[in-house]
Formats: sequence, C-alpha cells, structure tokens
Amino acid sequence: MPYHTLLEGILGRGIMANWRYSMNTIITHILTRRSVRSFTEEQIRDEDLDLILQAATLAPNGMNQEPWHFTAIQDPETLRKLEEKVDGTADSFFYHAPTLILVSIEIGNAYEKEDTACAMTNMMQAAHALGLGSVWCNRINHDPKLGVQLSSFGVPEGYKVTGTLAVGYPKGAYSSPRIPKQGTITYIRS
Amino acid sequence: MPYHTLLEGILGRGIMANWRYSMNTIITHILTRRSVRSFTEEQIRDEDLDLILQAATLAPNGMNQEPWHFTAIQDPETLRKLEEKVDGTADSFFYHAPTLILVSIEIGNAYEKEDTACAMTNMMQAAHALGLGSVWCNRINHDPKLGVQLSSFGVPEGYKVTGTLAVGYPKGAYSSPRIPKQGTITYIRS
Repeated sequence: MPYHTLLEGILGRGIMANWRYSMNTIITHILTRRSVRSFTEEQIRDEDLDLILQAATLAPNGMNQEPWHFTAIQDPETLRKLEEKVDGTADSFFYHAPTLILVSIEIGNAYEKEDTACAMTNMMQAAHALGLGSVWCNRINHDPKLGVQLSSFGVPEGYKVTGTLAVGYPKGAYSSPRIPKQGTITYIRS
Repeated sequence: MPYHTLLEGILGRGIMANWRYSMNTIITHILTRRSVRSFTEEQIRDEDLDLILQAATLAPNGMNQEPWHFTAIQDPETLRKLEEKVDGTADSFFYHAPTLILVSIEIGNAYEKEDTACAMTNMMQAAHALGLGSVWCNRINHDPKLGVQLSSFGVPEGYKVTGTLAVGYPKGAYSSPRIPKQGTITYIRS
C-alpha cells in the first residue's frame, strides 16, 4: 500500500503502529458523506474517475456474479442527448454534473437492486474520499422502457439501467453531517 | 473532526495540508474490503458496534425517508434461538459470528432493497475500516414468512428483515483484494 510506505518514510514506524488513527479518518469520512446536488463546471480528474469505478467493480454483490456494467459519460453532447430522452425533467436530472455514471445490470438478475446499491454506495464513498460530490439520480431507472433502450449510450444489450450517479466538484459549502432519525437501533446483549 | 485535531497537534499543519494522503488511505480501504466468513470468538468492542450502526443510519437512502431499523444481536442465547428458526442451515447461517445485525425496512417502502444495500455497504466499509470482518447473510430475507415474524428478536412490528450482517474479528488471514471481472466499464468522453 503506497500510502503506508510513503507515510512510514516520513514519520517513522512509531506513529503508523497506531493504525486506529487511520481507522478514525476512514470512519469520519463514511459518516460525513452527504448527497451533493450542485456542481462546478470543472471536470473530475481521470485518475479519480478510475478510482470511483474501481470501487464500483469491487463492491459486494450477490454470489459474486458481478452482473453489472458501468458507463461513465463525460461528453457534453452525449449528456445533452441523454437528457432529451428523459421525461419530465424541467431541469437537468443529474444537476448538470460534468460526469454521469450509468449503472446497469443483466436483465433478470435476482440481486439487481442490491448489487446496484452496493456499487453506488462504494462509488459515493470513494467520491467523497476524493473530495468530490455525488448523488444517486433515479430518473432513468424509474422509467422501465427507457432503462433498456440505452445501448447507444454505452449500456450493453441485455442490461438495464438500475441507477445513475452524478459526480463532480461540489459547488458551495459541503453539507453538515446529517442527523439521523432517532430510535432506529435496538441492541440485544447478554 | 477529532482525528484532524489530534494529528495536527502531533505533526504540525504542514503534512495535514496534503489531504490526498488521507484520501488514498480511505480509497485503499474501500478497494480492499472482502467478505469474511470465519470469525474468532472475541466479541467486538461496544464503540466499534456503535460506529458501524452510525454508518448504517447515515447511509444514503431513497428520499431520505430512513425507513429502516437495525437490530444488533450479541446475546448467544438469542442468536441460538434465531438460528433454530432459520430453515435449511446445516451450520450457522451467520458463520458463528459474535454479532449479527438485522436490517429491517417498513413494509411497503419502494426503496426497501436499495436502502438495505446502502446501509449494508456503509456498515461493511465501517467494519473493514475498524479491522473487523463482515458478510451479508441472506438466509432470513430469502424466507418471506420468517422476515416478518421476528418481533421477538427486536424487529419492529410492520417491518420486515431485508438483510443481515455478520460481524466479528476475522479468523485467519484477510483475503487479498478481489480481481474484478474485466470489461465492465465503458467511457464516453469528448
């Protein structure tokens, strides 16, 4: 792991021995992720997109069938054409993000929704860790006809779009951590 | 963020300015998570369970309805009784993990599968960041009758179990990163 090697070189091994420091960073990041619906025009870095897509392909999935495909669209003209196909959007359904990732799943897979959401969550966490914002946009997958008609947008034949993720640099301040609904946890201990 | 404050105190502000170091740690963790199906008998720390459950309650979810409940069972006798209710398990359906978290969703919620998977993924990533192992066990939610009959196991009335997560310390070596299936990514750039 390059990070370890690098930081060990700088700090010596003493501090790295207390791995809980890093754990806390990761947990903090997981807990502070918020959906972002306003983006700057700046395109994300190619290496960041690659990491986000890696996180998708390494997400947990049912029986490890990996029945998914990820189509990252950054071409403004393609995004504009896709926008035209989506009904009922007064404004951009992906909030004018510079990058839109279509998640599609082999039609008929029993875990289509779970696998989609696992990949989406991994991508959202990866984007957040990279200082980017993202939001799950449902407009395409809420339209059963449209979801299976996007082969000209890089969705493989036999797959249907089950979720889309808008990604970009957040415009304005990042939202404070959400206060979760209370009373949603029960402990059963000895 | 306590981690920042702590590390800034130790290291000075120079190193913290390069926030990409931490990003890389987080990404590395996201990419290296694997499902764990063998656990030691040691119970996980209370504070780690709390963090995992916090990650669940702060997961993305449809329309932020938070229609979920999380029941963390650590009592061996309760786990034994639950095991008895589950059909078709020659051995423990949660791999004898010391902690089992039942995720349940209000019956009728349109995003039940997506919300479950988002919460599960956040918990799996949090557990991994804390040095713990976890695996999504589907046995209860694959039984439509059983999933709505667990009020005596801390599942609220009107909710159904949609997924369960076994959590504990991994026994043996942690698996190497998974090599994802190839050909699952398409880029559409200008």
